[in-house]
Amino acid sequence: ADPAALAAARAHQDSLTKPRGALGVLEEVAVRLAGAAAVSPPPLPTPAALAIFAADHGVHARGVTPWPQEVTVQMVGNFLAGGAVANAFAAQVGASVTVVDVGVAADLPPAPGLTVSKVAYGTADLSVGPAMTAEQVVAALEAGIAVARELVDQGARCLVTGDMGIANTTASAALICAFTGKDAAAVTGRGTGVDDETLARKIEVVRQALRVNGLAGRREGLPATGPANGREGADGQPVSAGDLSGGLPVGMGDLSGGLPERVEGTPEDGRAVPPLEVLAAVGGLEHAAIAGFVLGGAALGVPVILDGVIAGAAALAAAALAPAVVDHCVAGHRSAEPGHAAALDHLGLRPLVELELRLGEGTGGLLAHPLVCAAVRVMHEVATFDSAGVTDKEA
Amino acid sequence: ADPAALAAARAHQDSLTKPRGALGVLEEVAVRLAGAAAVSPPPLPTPAALAIFAADHGVHARGVTPWPQEVTVQMVGNFLAGGAVANAFAAQVGASVTVVDVGVAADLPPAPGLTVSKVAYGTADLSVGPAMTAEQVVAALEAGIAVARELVDQGARCLVTGDMGIANTTASAALICAFTGKDAAAVTGRGTGVDDETLARKIEVVRQALRVNGLAGRREGLPATGPANGREGADGQPVSAGDLSGGLPVGMGDLSGGLPERVEGTPEDGRAVPPLEVLAAVGGLEHAAIAGFVLGGAALGVPVILDGVIAGAAALAAAALAPAVVDHCVAGHRSAEPGHAAALDHLGLRPLVELELRLGEGTGGLLAHPLVCAAVRVMHEVATFDSAGVTDKEA
Repeated sequence: ADPAALAAARAHQDSLTKPRGALGVLEEVAVRLAGAAAVSPPPLPTPAALAIFAADHGVHARGVTPWPQEVTVQMVGNFLAGGAVANAFAAQVGASVTVVDVGVAADLPPAPGLTVSKVAYGTADLSVGPAMTAEQVVAALEAGIAVARELVDQGARCLVTGDMGIANTTASAALICAFTGKDAAAVTGRGTGVDDETLARKIEVVRQALRVNGLAGRREGLPATGPANGREGADGQPVSAGDLSGGLPVGMGDLSGGLPERVEGTPEDGRAVPPLEVLAAVGGLEHAAIAGFVLGGAALGVPVILDGVIAGAAALAAAALAPAVVDHCVAGHRSAEPGHAAALDHLGLRPLVELELRLGEGTGGLLAHPLVCAAVRVMHEVATFDSAGVTDKEA
Repeated sequence: ADPAALAAARAHQDSLTKPRGALGVLEEVAVRLAGAAAVSPPPLPTPAALAIFAADHGVHARGVTPWPQEVTVQMVGNFLAGGAVANAFAAQVGASVTVVDVGVAADLPPAPGLTVSKVAYGTADLSVGPAMTAEQVVAALEAGIAVARELVDQGARCLVTGDMGIANTTASAALICAFTGKDAAAVTGRGTGVDDETLARKIEVVRQALRVNGLAGRREGLPATGPANGREGADGQPVSAGDLSGGLPVGMGDLSGGLPERVEGTPEDGRAVPPLEVLAAVGGLEHAAIAGFVLGGAALGVPVILDGVIAGAAALAAAALAPAVVDHCVAGHRSAEPGHAAALDHLGLRPLVELELRLGEGTGGLLAHPLVCAAVRVMHEVATFDSAGVTDKEA
């Protein structure tokens, strides 16, 4: 963040005709966006564009959700027909909707509003080995970056993350464990609504995924460690997602410098697992794509409103790759999923909407868009004590 | 609320292409508004109209705020010039802004957007006797009702409460104590930002106001009692705001039946204080007007989004007069002022926005408007599992 713009934004806030700090969290949002944009006031973050990244998950076979896998493709059809909640919320806030197939387990017919960037027909089962190969992670990440660039080229001045993928809260929980060091039981939730038995199975699947992929046993706040905890496949042999240490083969401007080697904190023992390898091990194709979308939006200097727990998990990966992206992120909401709060705490982001949503699709991010606009609009339109002739108690 | 519309709205929510309950609090908002409108889905609550009721307070002389009283009139000028935060937020959500002078302590020149319904040049000091006469309360209440009717006649389909009045958080705290039975220390806050010494004085002023006006010593959840606690003026003699038991001389349709006699709960001892008398004793002219605005909006079948602690205090009065109005109210936000949470709890309303705002003007209510629209829009636009061909796990 640009220190001069941050300071200018804070001073500007304090000159406006309102008691200092009276807009609470919204003042901080406007100041943060000024820092990210390196200009005060920051540009109005409108119009917004929602991208819904859709993909399937091999772990679905483990019975972690009562919803059949084909609901992913059915909901893609619903988005394209304009019939989902995300469409209604997008219409409410004037956002465009783009659906991106990065890994749906079916072929989708071409349709207006659909971008096909399919990397695979779903991931492998993360509980028996890496969900993705190194190549798949990079391809999905690049797909997300490309969508960000295209939407900004088309005029978007704010990006909103969306997702669709039956079973993707399981992968999210595993990613959040890996990046924050939290225990599986603390961050694994009921997703779209699972019973106690399924929840217990889901937690066990997350634990197994971490163990099998060498990501278990991290202490909170430290990155995953390697050899000490082993890294074994279903057959007890170490598995590998290939060499991801080479980093991201895309031009990201200022962000690219930090990509290849970045890990969080200090490994306690053994090697640290690079973020892309964590993503490959237990992530989903939509997580990788959303991480790219966040990196792309940040690199292009556009605010990115994060939706729910899937976006939170993806943002942890993006932030591990390039910590500066967090400056460009706004936490749209906090979902009912327990891992989401853990992810946002780790990112240092405070959510704007807390209404117990647990839908995904970008719905919580869209709801936050008018709040973000309002926060920034204040800096453009509100009179100062001086200009309005209002007595300032602190002058 | 209409039971058939409530049931129809719940069934409709459960048929939509989302997991049941996945929209959290927003589902309940949409269902409540269906019940209030007696039709499912309820009408889209747009366009919205903000009314900012402005008035001054005799208690200002007690040093309960660092802001000079003339800031009330200065801010009215700022609203009319379009330079306040409320204007920026109204522009963001497409709401009109009407400023209503119900009791500013100065004459205001005519201006577009200003409705002059001045009842008095501010209230009397509530800490030495009733703030208003019976006639003043009724006049302010009627002014609020008239504004609601005018805005709805002009096409508004959602009303948003706003307020401006230096020192009005002091009157709000006293009203909240009187209606909820809470202790002054628990509900009196720092308003727009007072120091510890001023806060202590403010709490003492609220206690004194309750004592002097015979409203002290209520047990939580019970209405104010009369003779047992005495009702004395500064000179130790009982004071009276006149006879308010005759009720409200306006046609309110279904709501009018409950107005005159309604008190909350059961008096423990002595007489119960009628709501209008509580309002007269420790309220402000803008509180009375906002109570009327809420009653008016409810009588006209239009949702009313409540702003902050001033609206919360006024809504307690409106609800005490006619409990059914609460069905039509949406709690726009919860402010940083502690009394606001107490008021919302008493009303049984859950706030939509919790961002530590403490500005008033209607700002928190405006921020909630897109959320309310989004909640209702879902019921109009989202496809059902059947119509979209999406598999329902619970079918």
